Amino acid sequence: MSLRRKLYVIVFGTETKAGRRFDLVLLWLILASVLAVMLESISSVGSKYSELFFRIELIFTVIFSIEYLLRIFISPKPLNYIFSFWGLIDLISILPTYLIVLFPNFHYLLIIRSIRLMRVFRVAKLVRFTAEGKMLGEALKSSYYKISTFLFTVLITVTVMGTVMYVVEGPVNGFTSIPQSIYWAVITITTVGYGDIVPSTVVGKLVSSMVMVIGYAIIAVPTGIFTVEMFKSVSHRTECKICKHKNESLAKFCSNCGNPINEHLEEFESKS
Amino acid sequence: MSLRRKLYVIVFGTETKAGRRFDLVLLWLILASVLAVMLESISSVGSKYSELFFRIELIFTVIFSIEYLLRIFISPKPLNYIFSFWGLIDLISILPTYLIVLFPNFHYLLIIRSIRLMRVFRVAKLVRFTAEGKMLGEALKSSYYKISTFLFTVLITVTVMGTVMYVVEGPVNGFTSIPQSIYWAVITITTVGYGDIVPSTVVGKLVSSMVMVIGYAIIAVPTGIFTVEMFKSVSHRTECKICKHKNESLAKFCSNCGNPINEHLEEFESKS
Amino acid sequence: MSLRRKLYVIVFGTETKAGRRFDLVLLWLILASVLAVMLESISSVGSKYSELFFRIELIFTVIFSIEYLLRIFISPKPLNYIFSFWGLIDLISILPTYLIVLFPNFHYLLIIRSIRLMRVFRVAKLVRFTAEGKMLGEALKSSYYKISTFLFTVLITVTVMGTVMYVVEGPVNGFTSIPQSIYWAVITITTVGYGDIVPSTVVGKLVSSMVMVIGYAIIAVPTGIFTVEMFKSVSHRTECKICKHKNESLAKFCSNCGNPINEHLEEFESKS
Amino acid sequence: MSLRRKLYVIVFGTETKAGRRFDLVLLWLILASVLAVMLESISSVGSKYSELFFRIELIFTVIFSIEYLLRIFISPKPLNYIFSFWGLIDLISILPTYLIVLFPNFHYLLIIRSIRLMRVFRVAKLVRFTAEGKMLGEALKSSYYKISTFLFTVLITVTVMGTVMYVVEGPVNGFTSIPQSIYWAVITITTVGYGDIVPSTVVGKLVSSMVMVIGYAIIAVPTGIFTVEMFKSVSHRTECKICKHKNESLAKFCSNCGNPINEHLEEFESKS
Repeated sequence: MSLRRKLYVIVFGTETKAGRRFDLVLLWLILASVLAVMLESISSVGSKYSELFFRIELIFTVIFSIEYLLRIFISPKPLNYIFSFWGLIDLISILPTYLIVLFPNFHYLLIIRSIRLMRVFRVAKLVRFTAEGKMLGEALKSSYYKISTFLFTVLITVTVMGTVMYVVEGPVNGFTSIPQSIYWAVITITTVGYGDIVPSTVVGKLVSSMVMVIGYAIIAVPTGIFTVEMFKSVSHRTECKICKHKNESLAKFCSNCGNPINEHLEEFESKS
Repeated sequence: MSLRRKLYVIVFGTETKAGRRFDLVLLWLILASVLAVMLESISSVGSKYSELFFRIELIFTVIFSIEYLLRIFISPKPLNYIFSFWGLIDLISILPTYLIVLFPNFHYLLIIRSIRLMRVFRVAKLVRFTAEGKMLGEALKSSYYKISTFLFTVLITVTVMGTVMYVVEGPVNGFTSIPQSIYWAVITITTVGYGDIVPSTVVGKLVSSMVMVIGYAIIAVPTGIFTVEMFKSVSHRTECKICKHKNESLAKFCSNCGNPINEHLEEFESKS
Repeated sequence: MSLRRKLYVIVFGTETKAGRRFDLVLLWLILASVLAVMLESISSVGSKYSELFFRIELIFTVIFSIEYLLRIFISPKPLNYIFSFWGLIDLISILPTYLIVLFPNFHYLLIIRSIRLMRVFRVAKLVRFTAEGKMLGEALKSSYYKISTFLFTVLITVTVMGTVMYVVEGPVNGFTSIPQSIYWAVITITTVGYGDIVPSTVVGKLVSSMVMVIGYAIIAVPTGIFTVEMFKSVSHRTECKICKHKNESLAKFCSNCGNPINEHLEEFESKS
Repeated sequence: MSLRRKLYVIVFGTETKAGRRFDLVLLWLILASVLAVMLESISSVGSKYSELFFRIELIFTVIFSIEYLLRIFISPKPLNYIFSFWGLIDLISILPTYLIVLFPNFHYLLIIRSIRLMRVFRVAKLVRFTAEGKMLGEALKSSYYKISTFLFTVLITVTVMGTVMYVVEGPVNGFTSIPQSIYWAVITITTVGYGDIVPSTVVGKLVSSMVMVIGYAIIAVPTGIFTVEMFKSVSHRTECKICKHKNESLAKFCSNCGNPINEHLEEFESKS
């Protein structure tokens, strides 16, 4: 096995001991760099040790740059990696520091820097949580359309209710515009309830109460959708030995090919 | 096929390419008109470009008026359309501008104008979300009585608890009247918690805590109801004509007797 | 049938047309009296029309007194009715006015008056919602122990977390005592979040975040419990014709008596 | 049976009448001591009766010290008890008072004192709730990985969203640092919504709305996970030794072959 292939297994894989160790080191480096960014953002700390934080930042950038170049070097198809989701994340997580060095007053790069946090996602693949995460992902994916429909309905509801409240309460009571009122409706229907915008009129309180009760009741919808999908994805199935179709747990004949299912049923769950 | 019939398929239908394109254009027009209304409501924007918004509004009204007349013209039974839900929505969404032109100071028309947003619902039919939306609708419909009972119980609870808090806290602490206290109870039981009215006395805080815990625990009720209905509506079953066994919805062969399930499947749900 | 028996069927029953009409009239009277109490509590309205409200109150009291005496008169066992739950509610809902007439400055009677609202519960029996309400009640009853365990755990959690926050934040930051801190913990764990007491220190915010996430995650517990109970109470069952045991839907032999279940299965749902 | 053995059954066991009575007395002593600590923390009460509370505290400490020594004495393996979870709790719940007597100004002992509240957990074992609590515990345990994955995702989301808001809103609008912004994100995504930190800019409100809707929708995830686990843990099955059919948990006869299910039931769960 060539060095490049060996490195590939370590850097991209999680099956070998070295691969897991590499990922673990990376995980801690990412967490440390995220922590450094956080601490720097606290003005009392950041201004005092600005020099130190800048140096730490440089070190992390150098490390992550090496990692980035390494990944490009060992990829079988470097361009595929570069333009992949994770490739772009890797690039974006080192770019800000270079840009800061070149254009020291470019403050909006903070927004780019924050994307570095997304590196954390990559390491999420690491642990044995993978199987679980995958199942959750599948349940979410298969309930995608239903949840979209739900969110679409919520969107229309907050638009209508926000407009109604704008008419009812008006700019005098903090409902300064329709978008602002829709923002209020989102706060209310999701039961967050900051309390920065609240109804003052009697009619407004009545409408609010309706929005609250709607929000309280329809939380049932995404929950119901997701629970059913979860249930379907964990439910027991009996596999047909001939056509590999997964039948209902008590089936005697395969519902796909009609052959009898053998006595020694191979019952299996979707390994959860 | 007559022109009228052709237009009917385009305007009312979603099966043909032209029909879908018509709906899509309408969707964007509706969204644009809604956006214009929203922007106009922002005082800084609305007062600066009031002339422009008025013109935009006129253009949208002309377009939607044409659509409205077209729908009347091509309907097989125009009166049925005019007095249908969507017919009234269509009328209401053009009426305000005409009224504003005639009576320029009629501010409460905003409330009518806001109903235009309901046009968005119509286009919701468009997309492939339909099947999913229909299932959600059915699950909601079949859990209607149970959820009504639940909401009725919540209503009684907030009335009782609101009155108790009015007695306990009194007008001095912001609980100025029983309706106001009921409004507080709704805010609390739905876990919205604006914080505009909060208990000050020890007994009041105790009662509040109870209301909060009740609200936190009984959210389980609508969720449980809806989840079970969802579950029932997704577990459609196909009956075997020979042994009457109820198979999985996509079964080709009966899992009980192994016979092929006839072409004309008798799909039925668990009659609930 | 004697007059007393006839009246009994009308006043206590809901099966006859006259019985339903009586209940409906009573429902509206109760709602009207509740509304009057609510309106009276609004100081601007109450002080203006205090004379009027007092007269309305007297009329309602007379009507409900007649109803109360009627119920005692027609009951087969009057004492049973008088000391039953509803009998006491009926008494309590007329008592306050009499006491107010006798002792005009007895303000705390408002608390007794508020119990009149519980009369609303009685009418809840009326409508066809009954069957649904009964199922909900059963699901709640059978999940009673589990939900109690859950609430007990929540109680211990808020006690521990409240005490921790009292230690961390202290009286300076609004956490004036352990009970007050527990009140904060209830507000936070139930995701109500009034915002009247909020952490100020860094450690306090960290602990708060933990409490929030706990509250957000464990809402799953009562929901899960209730959903499973709901599911069990609606799930299909096949009744054994011999011992009336309700078997699993696909059973061939009764799991209670071992007899074969006849070909013509009597499938039934728990009438939902 | 020796005295030590007899005491062991009373102190550690819950099967005998004396054992249950001992636990009940202990339960009330713990609740009383917790209540005393709570009352003492209310400054108006605590300062007035500080002498009284100190004496009460001494009495409770003496009682719990006796209990502690008793437990050590009667344990078959005293060291095992001392270093067990409950042994440490028992030690910690008497230690603070001794320390306070020795070092009267050691205020941070309050934090240790608060751990006494954890004694309440022990008594939770007492009641018949045990079976239910065990099932809940099992459902939580088996959904541990899935819920961890979920919480991990929430953690990453609040980190990313908090950072975005720090960039968007900045220190001027209360988002003074990234940790503070993450704290805001936790408040928002869990739908607690204190309202102590709220967005002021238009973009900030837009991002907030997104966070709220995310929080509102993904509450479905832990609920779905837990509901499915609950469902699995209540659907225990009894296997027929003859035809291997899995019957309802309380079946006496196999519903598939009609044979009696042997006395020594092979109860098993769907190994998940």
